Amino acid sequence: MIYQAKIQASTRGRGSYLITDRVQELVKKSQVQTGLCHLFLHHTSASLIICENADPDVREDMERFMSRLVPDGDPLFAHTMEGPDDMPAHIRSLLTHTDLTLPVSKGCCALGIWQGIYLWEHRKAGHRREITITVSGD
Amino acid sequence: MIYQAKIQASTRGRGSYLITDRVQELVKKSQVQTGLCHLFLHHTSASLIICENADPDVREDMERFMSRLVPDGDPLFAHTMEGPDDMPAHIRSLLTHTDLTLPVSKGCCALGIWQGIYLWEHRKAGHRREITITVSGD
Amino acid sequence: MIYQAKIQASTRGRGSYLITDRVQELVKKSQVQTGLCHLFLHHTSASLIICENADPDVREDMERFMSRLVPDGDPLFAHTMEGPDDMPAHIRSLLTHTDLTLPVSKGCCALGIWQGIYLWEHRKAGHRREITITVSGD
Repeated sequence: MIYQAKIQASTRGRGSYLITDRVQELVKKSQVQTGLCHLFLHHTSASLIICENADPDVREDMERFMSRLVPDGDPLFAHTMEGPDDMPAHIRSLLTHTDLTLPVSKGCCALGIWQGIYLWEHRKAGHRREITITVSGD
Repeated sequence: MIYQAKIQASTRGRGSYLITDRVQELVKKSQVQTGLCHLFLHHTSASLIICENADPDVREDMERFMSRLVPDGDPLFAHTMEGPDDMPAHIRSLLTHTDLTLPVSKGCCALGIWQGIYLWEHRKAGHRREITITVSGD
Repeated sequence: MIYQAKIQASTRGRGSYLITDRVQELVKKSQVQTGLCHLFLHHTSASLIICENADPDVREDMERFMSRLVPDGDPLFAHTMEGPDDMPAHIRSLLTHTDLTLPVSKGCCALGIWQGIYLWEHRKAGHRREITITVSGD
């Protein structure tokens, strides 16, 4: 059994956006009971991540860590024509994930109790982001 | 054909633990000959990685590299209530992987000769970690 | 439906090599219309990445960023017997990806318009690299 659909998400600029509920709805819709849920982001300047969903400081610390590791406007970068935050966005995307695969058990994504699924926007401006979800199994 | 099971692993604190054999046993049990083996870690402060399994210095160098890149107790972090190694653990997890997908060929995980599958504990204290394995194919 | 094949790629040393066309050909050959395409690299000193495929500066910036983050010959590393670029290659591989899963829609990998699939060689010398491709679905 294969179910495939698109998730459209509008971001309001840099930051992480919880998408767990939207993913779980589509997994339910797929009617797969046991199998896998795959998420693929069709962009190279944002990420899909699994992150602690309890203390919001965790995601702010992630943001601060990335801003220090890959600073906007770093003179190291030659690719500057799309703005000082574009090349850092590509690097952030590379160092994290643009695809995730999650187990499906008893008809839903079997996440750990502290795990949330987030779309992480790395560009300063808001963007319209597209994700393909593929659910397969029995 | 879909086979799903849990792997429970107890860690003795920060460090990498070889789990290749446990994964291979479950792949055999699944009776899948050609397909995929997916591993998912239900935690955000440890990782699942594929790493060189020959020289143990490699995994010690990895550890040293991560300790320098994401130091425990870094004053950058606001999320400190679970200890100085908790936020670094989340970042290490984010920069590596909590899910892995491996090809299954001739009834086992088709790893390269120098590749081992490791559970990488990032917390200083030992933890009980849970992994879901899903094997699918013919 | 499961299709599995090998991709052999010879690299000419450190740098990123576009493999999108080779992957798309094999997906066509699999005859899967809707499903998933999984790529697995059988090595721990190279990566498989999805990257912007328009401005070549992006991939040069990636390279420069990685050379600064994980310098060759870093005195931190004990594993030096395979040369000053070997341990950095393992770390680069760990911080990026050695497996990728992509959605298959209408008989081909459904990549975003700016997304290319690259084999990223991290060793200074050319190597022969092996990738297993597994395509599954309807």
